[in-house]
Amino acid sequence: MHKKLLLISNSTMAGEEYLAWPQPYISDFLNSEKVKKVTFVPYAGVGLDEESLEASYNVYTERVQAVFAKLGFEIESVHQAANPVKMIQEAESIAVGGGNTFHLVAKMHETGIMQAIKEKAETGTTYMGWSAGSNVACPSLMTTNDMPIIQPESFDCLNLIPFQINPHYLDANPEGHGGETREQRIEEFLVVNKNMKVLGLREASLLFVDGPLMKLLGSRPLRFFAFGAAPEEFAPGSDLSRFL
Amino acid sequence: MHKKLLLISNSTMAGEEYLAWPQPYISDFLNSEKVKKVTFVPYAGVGLDEESLEASYNVYTERVQAVFAKLGFEIESVHQAANPVKMIQEAESIAVGGGNTFHLVAKMHETGIMQAIKEKAETGTTYMGWSAGSNVACPSLMTTNDMPIIQPESFDCLNLIPFQINPHYLDANPEGHGGETREQRIEEFLVVNKNMKVLGLREASLLFVDGPLMKLLGSRPLRFFAFGAAPEEFAPGSDLSRFL
Repeated sequence: MHKKLLLISNSTMAGEEYLAWPQPYISDFLNSEKVKKVTFVPYAGVGLDEESLEASYNVYTERVQAVFAKLGFEIESVHQAANPVKMIQEAESIAVGGGNTFHLVAKMHETGIMQAIKEKAETGTTYMGWSAGSNVACPSLMTTNDMPIIQPESFDCLNLIPFQINPHYLDANPEGHGGETREQRIEEFLVVNKNMKVLGLREASLLFVDGPLMKLLGSRPLRFFAFGAAPEEFAPGSDLSRFL
Repeated sequence: MHKKLLLISNSTMAGEEYLAWPQPYISDFLNSEKVKKVTFVPYAGVGLDEESLEASYNVYTERVQAVFAKLGFEIESVHQAANPVKMIQEAESIAVGGGNTFHLVAKMHETGIMQAIKEKAETGTTYMGWSAGSNVACPSLMTTNDMPIIQPESFDCLNLIPFQINPHYLDANPEGHGGETREQRIEEFLVVNKNMKVLGLREASLLFVDGPLMKLLGSRPLRFFAFGAAPEEFAPGSDLSRFL
């Protein structure tokens, strides 16, 4: 069984409903493997309910459930399992939602599902992630845009792909702002991690991995970064298998 | 001897020369203590020369030297010391430059200067930082905007002030971008760190700490965040001593 991954830049376009734009891709991806039930990881979702993290995960799961139900898929969440590792090991398909990447990675290590998801996805269980959920498919969390609100045991992630994704890739700063641009940040990453490649995945785009094949889907070009080389642009529909 | 800190949001306004706007504050701060020589920490500066980190620190130090020389102050850099901890222990004044906060914190722990700077600044040696250099004065790096390009030994920082600064505080995302706003990110931090306060320090503003007193300087208001409360704005010139 080979890897099947759907790595989505962002859940939602500004002004649209939650998880609206990627729905056709999600349906195709899951239907191609005849998936009925998806095991959801909500740990990136902090603050959806200020009462508690548990309440926040509940709100998040319900929100995702509503979208997936409409598409004909059932959702169960690891945060409601007595044994999250066991739920992952028995999963038909796995979806990791966006939010805060540091919190997601901290909880994935703490609960042991980091290793369990890795084993499942490597042996062919469909894996889908958006935003933080795409970031954790990478070797590490080192190209996240998120605030480090909690210190995870390790920055290491699932390593399902041999490169880093920068989700929500953004070309410019707001006018008049002097902070680093996204491109400058990625270049700093490459100075310290010279052998790594970074794929800047703009909003409304996603990567589809099917064994040895990888394709850029969605409506916007991708920006590719390697140390010491000028960035390259790839058009939607490009075959990116060479990066696997 | 009480603490004397100058915590600057950002080195440079868009379109201006390097370290231009904070120069009057830097001069006043150092002259009030009759400082002649400043010990500089360049470890946030990665990629100023792609050849090597050492070369990057050299470029950074020269750039800072040029500005400080004009103001009448000498600069020496810890990266050129045989024993960085000893150089800090003998420092007349300390300045920590901006750049990548994770890289800065990793190197400060690795070289042992994190603890050495803490001891010096707590006993009255003037401490100045801009951007990442302001962030490391906080209890942790958890409110940085930077990319986690390297995993530091710990997220803990100098803890010279009992709250977190978010430097380069920014009100809005570029139009049409669906990623989290800065305010949303800080609110996520507060969900997981409920007892901490965050001071959103907009560009062109800075905090001046003189023992039990703290004042907002510069030209823009500060945005204050606490868990479960609406954010508050403080005008330039405000006395913020209550937060110490």
